[in-house]
Amino acid sequence: LNSSTNVARRPRGRRPGTSGTRDAIASAASRQFAELGYDRATIRSIADEAGVDPALVSHFFGSKQQLFVAAVGLPFDPAEVLPGLIADDPATAGLRFARFLAGALEERAVRDRLVGLVRAAASEPEASRMVRDLVSTEVMSRLADALGVEDADVRANLVGSQVVGLVMARHIVRVEPLASLPAERVAAAIAPNLQRYLTGPLPA
Amino acid sequence: LNSSTNVARRPRGRRPGTSGTRDAIASAASRQFAELGYDRATIRSIADEAGVDPALVSHFFGSKQQLFVAAVGLPFDPAEVLPGLIADDPATAGLRFARFLAGALEERAVRDRLVGLVRAAASEPEASRMVRDLVSTEVMSRLADALGVEDADVRANLVGSQVVGLVMARHIVRVEPLASLPAERVAAAIAPNLQRYLTGPLPA
Repeated sequence: LNSSTNVARRPRGRRPGTSGTRDAIASAASRQFAELGYDRATIRSIADEAGVDPALVSHFFGSKQQLFVAAVGLPFDPAEVLPGLIADDPATAGLRFARFLAGALEERAVRDRLVGLVRAAASEPEASRMVRDLVSTEVMSRLADALGVEDADVRANLVGSQVVGLVMARHIVRVEPLASLPAERVAAAIAPNLQRYLTGPLPA
Repeated sequence: LNSSTNVARRPRGRRPGTSGTRDAIASAASRQFAELGYDRATIRSIADEAGVDPALVSHFFGSKQQLFVAAVGLPFDPAEVLPGLIADDPATAGLRFARFLAGALEERAVRDRLVGLVRAAASEPEASRMVRDLVSTEVMSRLADALGVEDADVRANLVGSQVVGLVMARHIVRVEPLASLPAERVAAAIAPNLQRYLTGPLPA
């Protein structure tokens, strides 16, 4: 750990309002990474929105990359969510997973985080690498564990391709009519495809 | 048409080497939009790579947005490709479409264009809007025409979500093992899912 990470994780100068300020910065960062993308969101623009000095952003979070990881990250903990969605009954997991995803994307805070992640993945190489590391460790491997079959890693990647494609098409590019469909209809449309990736026949 | 579009489409001062220079700029642009993304590729960086003055890039192509449309665009003409892939026999189109896509993505020039499009779609709003317009007019509506069923527009969007998700996961984020699978195996893995989106049951 370098010193700026220490600063980010364990702010020393605890004083009234510290956690409120930190939250305000994190929430401005999450919104700007989603709305502007990784390249165009800056420490300065995030500080402006949070109404603080840019130096305070660096004090709490370190670099822009560290701020990204802290503020965007995943909107839920896969270790907590995936067992109930998948491991309990893989044969019917497609619809549960699809409903969870489409429903979660209706919430502004969750959508901002996922859109921020996808936009960062498509931006500069360092951000893309951060997303790959995060997704590989936190999502793909846990999804594969929840499935517990031999080719689970390919299956997890294929599920991921449909999830990221849905976020792109419906929430970033916003192609119509997909962007305007009710969440429940989107869930029903993608569920059988997710189910096949999870448990259907795959070529060897 | 504004005057810079005229310049871009019909360069008047024809002289030896004009089309070679234009091609060199277009090819540098296509590579940089794929490699750097829309935000970080600039008229200047593209001119540098092509070994020309930035003013010449503007002379041939107009603005960065116009250069993007001219240099990235689609790697093939959907009106030419889709009838054979889909309309001739929709019931077996999934595998043909998947093989065409996975095979085309093995070619550097095609991959650069598709990666450039997807990265631009995830970058700033103006670029994203350009991609949405291009994809809606040139791909979605033609794909829907080729299918010729009532809910063809939703089906086309869903196919698009899987295509863009594959480009993101395999060629931009490069999650493993998907990024290293042979193209034929990728085609076989996604084919039944494309087939369902094209002709399978969808919720009303």
